Amino acid sequence: MKQINEALTSTVEALTAPGKLHANLLRRHDERIALPSAVAVDEIIELSRGLVFPGFFSENEQDDMSFSFGTGLLVAKLHKLLLEQIKACNNIVGVSAAGNDKVEAKALATEFVTSLPALRDELHKDLSAIFHGDPAALSVAEIIYSYPAIRAIINHRVAHRLYVAGVKILPRMISEHAHRETGIDIHPGATIGHSFMIDHGTGVVIGETAIIGDRCRIYQGVTLGARSFPTDESGSMVKQLPRHPIIGNDVVIYANSTILGRVNIGDRCIIGGNIWITESVPADTTVLQAHAENRLTCHRNKQ
Amino acid sequence: MKQINEALTSTVEALTAPGKLHANLLRRHDERIALPSAVAVDEIIELSRGLVFPGFFSENEQDDMSFSFGTGLLVAKLHKLLLEQIKACNNIVGVSAAGNDKVEAKALATEFVTSLPALRDELHKDLSAIFHGDPAALSVAEIIYSYPAIRAIINHRVAHRLYVAGVKILPRMISEHAHRETGIDIHPGATIGHSFMIDHGTGVVIGETAIIGDRCRIYQGVTLGARSFPTDESGSMVKQLPRHPIIGNDVVIYANSTILGRVNIGDRCIIGGNIWITESVPADTTVLQAHAENRLTCHRNKQ
Amino acid sequence: MKQINEALTSTVEALTAPGKLHANLLRRHDERIALPSAVAVDEIIELSRGLVFPGFFSENEQDDMSFSFGTGLLVAKLHKLLLEQIKACNNIVGVSAAGNDKVEAKALATEFVTSLPALRDELHKDLSAIFHGDPAALSVAEIIYSYPAIRAIINHRVAHRLYVAGVKILPRMISEHAHRETGIDIHPGATIGHSFMIDHGTGVVIGETAIIGDRCRIYQGVTLGARSFPTDESGSMVKQLPRHPIIGNDVVIYANSTILGRVNIGDRCIIGGNIWITESVPADTTVLQAHAENRLTCHRNKQ
Amino acid sequence: MKQINEALTSTVEALTAPGKLHANLLRRHDERIALPSAVAVDEIIELSRGLVFPGFFSENEQDDMSFSFGTGLLVAKLHKLLLEQIKACNNIVGVSAAGNDKVEAKALATEFVTSLPALRDELHKDLSAIFHGDPAALSVAEIIYSYPAIRAIINHRVAHRLYVAGVKILPRMISEHAHRETGIDIHPGATIGHSFMIDHGTGVVIGETAIIGDRCRIYQGVTLGARSFPTDESGSMVKQLPRHPIIGNDVVIYANSTILGRVNIGDRCIIGGNIWITESVPADTTVLQAHAENRLTCHRNKQ
Amino acid sequence: MKQINEALTSTVEALTAPGKLHANLLRRHDERIALPSAVAVDEIIELSRGLVFPGFFSENEQDDMSFSFGTGLLVAKLHKLLLEQIKACNNIVGVSAAGNDKVEAKALATEFVTSLPALRDELHKDLSAIFHGDPAALSVAEIIYSYPAIRAIINHRVAHRLYVAGVKILPRMISEHAHRETGIDIHPGATIGHSFMIDHGTGVVIGETAIIGDRCRIYQGVTLGARSFPTDESGSMVKQLPRHPIIGNDVVIYANSTILGRVNIGDRCIIGGNIWITESVPADTTVLQAHAENRLTCHRNKQ
Amino acid sequence: MKQINEALTSTVEALTAPGKLHANLLRRHDERIALPSAVAVDEIIELSRGLVFPGFFSENEQDDMSFSFGTGLLVAKLHKLLLEQIKACNNIVGVSAAGNDKVEAKALATEFVTSLPALRDELHKDLSAIFHGDPAALSVAEIIYSYPAIRAIINHRVAHRLYVAGVKILPRMISEHAHRETGIDIHPGATIGHSFMIDHGTGVVIGETAIIGDRCRIYQGVTLGARSFPTDESGSMVKQLPRHPIIGNDVVIYANSTILGRVNIGDRCIIGGNIWITESVPADTTVLQAHAENRLTCHRNKQ
Repeated sequence: MKQINEALTSTVEALTAPGKLHANLLRRHDERIALPSAVAVDEIIELSRGLVFPGFFSENEQDDMSFSFGTGLLVAKLHKLLLEQIKACNNIVGVSAAGNDKVEAKALATEFVTSLPALRDELHKDLSAIFHGDPAALSVAEIIYSYPAIRAIINHRVAHRLYVAGVKILPRMISEHAHRETGIDIHPGATIGHSFMIDHGTGVVIGETAIIGDRCRIYQGVTLGARSFPTDESGSMVKQLPRHPIIGNDVVIYANSTILGRVNIGDRCIIGGNIWITESVPADTTVLQAHAENRLTCHRNKQ
Repeated sequence: MKQINEALTSTVEALTAPGKLHANLLRRHDERIALPSAVAVDEIIELSRGLVFPGFFSENEQDDMSFSFGTGLLVAKLHKLLLEQIKACNNIVGVSAAGNDKVEAKALATEFVTSLPALRDELHKDLSAIFHGDPAALSVAEIIYSYPAIRAIINHRVAHRLYVAGVKILPRMISEHAHRETGIDIHPGATIGHSFMIDHGTGVVIGETAIIGDRCRIYQGVTLGARSFPTDESGSMVKQLPRHPIIGNDVVIYANSTILGRVNIGDRCIIGGNIWITESVPADTTVLQAHAENRLTCHRNKQ
Repeated sequence: MKQINEALTSTVEALTAPGKLHANLLRRHDERIALPSAVAVDEIIELSRGLVFPGFFSENEQDDMSFSFGTGLLVAKLHKLLLEQIKACNNIVGVSAAGNDKVEAKALATEFVTSLPALRDELHKDLSAIFHGDPAALSVAEIIYSYPAIRAIINHRVAHRLYVAGVKILPRMISEHAHRETGIDIHPGATIGHSFMIDHGTGVVIGETAIIGDRCRIYQGVTLGARSFPTDESGSMVKQLPRHPIIGNDVVIYANSTILGRVNIGDRCIIGGNIWITESVPADTTVLQAHAENRLTCHRNKQ
Repeated sequence: MKQINEALTSTVEALTAPGKLHANLLRRHDERIALPSAVAVDEIIELSRGLVFPGFFSENEQDDMSFSFGTGLLVAKLHKLLLEQIKACNNIVGVSAAGNDKVEAKALATEFVTSLPALRDELHKDLSAIFHGDPAALSVAEIIYSYPAIRAIINHRVAHRLYVAGVKILPRMISEHAHRETGIDIHPGATIGHSFMIDHGTGVVIGETAIIGDRCRIYQGVTLGARSFPTDESGSMVKQLPRHPIIGNDVVIYANSTILGRVNIGDRCIIGGNIWITESVPADTTVLQAHAENRLTCHRNKQ
Repeated sequence: MKQINEALTSTVEALTAPGKLHANLLRRHDERIALPSAVAVDEIIELSRGLVFPGFFSENEQDDMSFSFGTGLLVAKLHKLLLEQIKACNNIVGVSAAGNDKVEAKALATEFVTSLPALRDELHKDLSAIFHGDPAALSVAEIIYSYPAIRAIINHRVAHRLYVAGVKILPRMISEHAHRETGIDIHPGATIGHSFMIDHGTGVVIGETAIIGDRCRIYQGVTLGARSFPTDESGSMVKQLPRHPIIGNDVVIYANSTILGRVNIGDRCIIGGNIWITESVPADTTVLQAHAENRLTCHRNKQ
Repeated sequence: MKQINEALTSTVEALTAPGKLHANLLRRHDERIALPSAVAVDEIIELSRGLVFPGFFSENEQDDMSFSFGTGLLVAKLHKLLLEQIKACNNIVGVSAAGNDKVEAKALATEFVTSLPALRDELHKDLSAIFHGDPAALSVAEIIYSYPAIRAIINHRVAHRLYVAGVKILPRMISEHAHRETGIDIHPGATIGHSFMIDHGTGVVIGETAIIGDRCRIYQGVTLGARSFPTDESGSMVKQLPRHPIIGNDVVIYANSTILGRVNIGDRCIIGGNIWITESVPADTTVLQAHAENRLTCHRNKQ
């Protein structure tokens, strides 16, 4: 017993020794510096979802009488949490040094919250697109209650607003939250038009600089990725260059296809399943796998 | 500060204005109308899992003395929750208008609960199939504790019972719960024989009208999907047509293969990995990728 | 009402009848025998993550004054939980019969806990690798907060330590926890070198006997799997044979590629996306898909 | 073990046998009939206190922005809980049979809630009285935070409103809540003027038909009780007759005194401590214990 | 900061130094020795109350279907908790050394639980007595919901059973729980007949060896206490001698009266309020305060 | 419905209108100003009790290995909470204006925490006094687990330390916490010697300027109060004058006695029960009630 106690004690010393903590990894223990909180981010997402589709994502049933008051409180709470998390993310990346002071965080939070009605309108369009694009969907309520796409798209539209406004880390935490829930990994930097539909969704990856037009439809396992990663003289990757595809309007990309690099997929293209594309495709083109005889071998099992 | 308060107040007004709420999207705030609850659905799944494999999915340890009483309470609780959620789902799709009255919901809930012993028998067969089909599995306990397949299959067999009984939305919420947990997306409409095994499972998609025989084995990333979506005269997709594959008995489908459309994969077929199939395959056939020389180019890296 | 009560009562009897419970499936209701607990495993993971990257994975903010005391308490708690769960896992697989007595469980738990500082060092290398390998990553903090890879790799390095020490079930529960969160399925038996990076990750499968060198990089949907499952004379699969690939140092494998069987992928190989490999590849080789003309058909859409 | 199980099983049967449950004692198990809930009553009290003295009785800190929204939500919640509990109390005493229908409960709840601002004004007067009457009190904040009197008086003023409106049971649950907290037992039927002060308070009992004027001050252990309980011909006590004292304005009653029966204590009387009074006292009278020599014996202790 | 850390660290050392912990005060940190738990005692009380008066003391609403199952689970839970706490109390007073082994604790717990139906019968008689003895009581439901006496009497009847069976500490924790809630302090050793009524109750004290007959009625502030505490040769008090009053049947004792020593108060006595009695009173006697003129002085206030 | 909504809305306006909020009553909604929190005070008390008597007041069982770490964390937590609450109390009474800056609050918190070992020693003496003074007490463990006196005395010794240090409001919240729990109301200003015992305790009141010597024993219902409240020229009470009794060493005061004013009760006095004293009593005196014949009238009941 004594030996174990000693082992644990020296482990604790090793874990808390200042020299053993990389300065930028350790969450600093200074009460005056707020740091990003995964719990707060989860709450921001839950509040946003609840305000856009009241009653679908939480137990917190509101009767008629408390609907306005309750909405008000949720809006105020979302504003407060956002403000804190924006400041916390500023702290961790040192943006505050560059002049991103408290007032700006307040302005960003307010701007975000006041855009919630517009966000709801956008998401209603996405809902319609999913409803009309999936023969299994019987009602829009069913979609909000049970389709992963709607969760992923809410998070993306929230995260993208914050990304565009220059907030760091927080947008990634929001998009990764959807990734965990749905297996759909959309970088908050991606630009996505209205009436966007994803079906099933697991394994979808959409890169930081991808641009997607209106009314597009994407199936599970589709990657819109980068092809190569240019390095600078020191051999480090150059960050944030445009390196992902540009997809036109009304494009459909079937399951498990991969489109890599800064290529253009023209309006109204249909990309079949399991396709690997690294060059641009002109508008109104359908791309399919070649015939099976080129690809497969069949034989009778031994019996 | 005053400006922010005004901005928030007008946002609240916009979010609660009746005209801004699509009648069929807003969860109606009428205390007499129950609506589906994600929290209740989670509880239904937890109760079902706990009743089928007592002690594996929850902390709630039952000693010998309270085992019968406790099981009774869980059964009664499951019955009550199911009844409420079936009625709530009826409410939201307006099925009640078509005569689906309270008595029927009660009958459905009772029927479901009384089928739990049979459900356990089915799941024991699935467990055996997983144990014998995975060389890494050392005990059935390990499988219940840690294999995603067992979670996905429990949820599917629960959801499918409710789907067949005509319940709306709830089965989808149950299957989507498994999808979130496991990355395995089985539509509750799919018909799946006994002794079913999925390995790893992430990315598996099995469509609404798919039919799978007994003793089949499926690996990660496999899609049993639809090929095309017929539209009616108005251009809307025709809903719920048979459009997914029929898989025979004793079929194995390896990782990341895709089978699309109402095709037949005969008994005892083996479909290799990364295969794309849109036509029927006769019984006792093995389908593999063609040789690498047709598919790949290799070269020495620059050094 | 009476009918329903009778139906439920007989269901309860069926569910609790001793004959209906497979001896090895039912969690035994003997207060003297601890059994594995999913809740405890979740806590073991949370504690490990919190000790390695203090402040990133929980709300539990520690100010300067309580940092040492708090770390000590977490270490003691982790030790206690591990000890209990190792014993519980011993119980369920009957290992204790083979002499794996209480003292050994204590030694294993202590050994694990004292390796936490080393674990942190390893994970700092993985972090560096992810930071330098992803052009979208702007800070290491962002990676800890929001990259699925870091969660999967923490869990793997924890689970692998326990697997190597001979603990059953628990390592699988830990790796499956990461699989649920991230869609990355690494068997705890897999051997993985330092500075390991996974990007996006959903759909990655790494098998039990796979060996991966240092500084490797793997993208979403990559499978390092088994090709065939040898059976013994009785037709049962032979368990735990080496059957997964050996990957050298500095290898990159792009999205959705599959490598099957006990093949060798040499040092510094680059495997393109969507590649299917079942044979060894010499060092310094790049493998890509053949030209599109062999694989695809394109045509203009009807208009 | 078997014996214990049998003993418990037969106990359960005895406890649930319909014959063993007095019809009016068992909380009826009819889901359509709400019954009073101690938890809901606690919440009603917490909401009332929080609305009258925002921020003193709960953690739920409201910043400036959410103060109106939050107050609105609390008001709506209080209204809903009151409505439910009034109906539940109607149910249990069968008042509803007498025509006390749902609309009336709604009217009562609304009336109560709209009287909150007036309630706050009354309580501010009580606060002032306590502050000026206790030399130990240094601020009104201290009184709200830490004086039992203020809790007892809030509850009384809430309960009395409901009592006067004819609500059954609920007012008693509210006054008993204060009794539990403070040892001050004021029947909700008692009529108490403004600027009322109780000091220390433990053991104070004020009966159902007591009437207390304005600006009175009462100390611990004071009883304003009934002297006798007239019975009807059948020997049963006659319920709800006036039987407790009438206290004028500006009266002070010191610790542990007892005043019994329908007597009058005139304006500005001072009743000393430990006094036993069963007859009326004219205005402007001071009543004290007789000299010690009549009452006490003193002697030196043996040493 | 450093100074504070050092101060705290040395405080921790002082608080945990073995020498600073009185062996019999420190809750021993041996995982094999259970110790009494205030939380478990609270639960024992809540379970007992809920089983005797189902639905009155908790939110846990049971519908008709789950009433038997739920009751069974509560009974089993109560049995388990009692068993643990009896053993824990044995441990702390070292009774186990005297042969009070595990089997006996089990027998006691079983005996207690099987007496619950009889306990309910007793409490129904107490309820009736309170209802008929208080002109303010309008229904028995009101009494269960809101009278402190019923809480105190439940706890006493539970604690007394355990006291008589020889359990240590636990009965006191149960009676003190009621004391905290109600201000009524009945030692678990006191013997109390059926149909017992206490009104208001705050300040009531009933000593360990008091004996009270049937149909007695006691008001707030009444003490049935000891008069003197005989000491042994060493000057220590002799513990557990009979030293409290014996009260006959049908006795009424009004508010704030005190009866001290092993005196007899005969059947049908009426003891007025504020009376101090240290000698026996024959049956059928009424004892009141002497006339006011002996006791009080009155004068007109200066004006 | 509309009418109700309007009624609630105007109520909310009335409740939140700035003019309707007394500036010094409303908890100010400024995020920079901490205000006292009842929840935090409860935690301070729980931490203090847990540190002095580890394991008796909480479920939080600490095994041997985590005892030091856990104690350290509790000490750090107590320090932090105290610091916050001292500052919050400063804020509300405006003491900060008088120069009571942050550093001083820190010093006070540190001083308090470092006095915990001394506090434990004092409380061990009180424990001994209770054990030797109550013939019903069988072990010191029983006293800590179930005697109200020990809770009241812990709180008093904690509150008095803070009172003496000049902290406002917080000491009263702590003493009132004990008052709620135990019915024992000791003002934090009271000075109490070592080895203090209270039995039963309900109704005990000890005033702000009371001084009690060593080894005193007090029973339920005893008041050590003020006799008169001098007023200044403006008619306001003069606050904080010495106005309560001074009790010597080794004094016993039996139940329900009242001692008022700045009188001296000499060493070794015994004050009988139900005594009313307003003048000093020399040392070594016993004071009892005069004979019953002076006080009581007895008569046979009509039969």
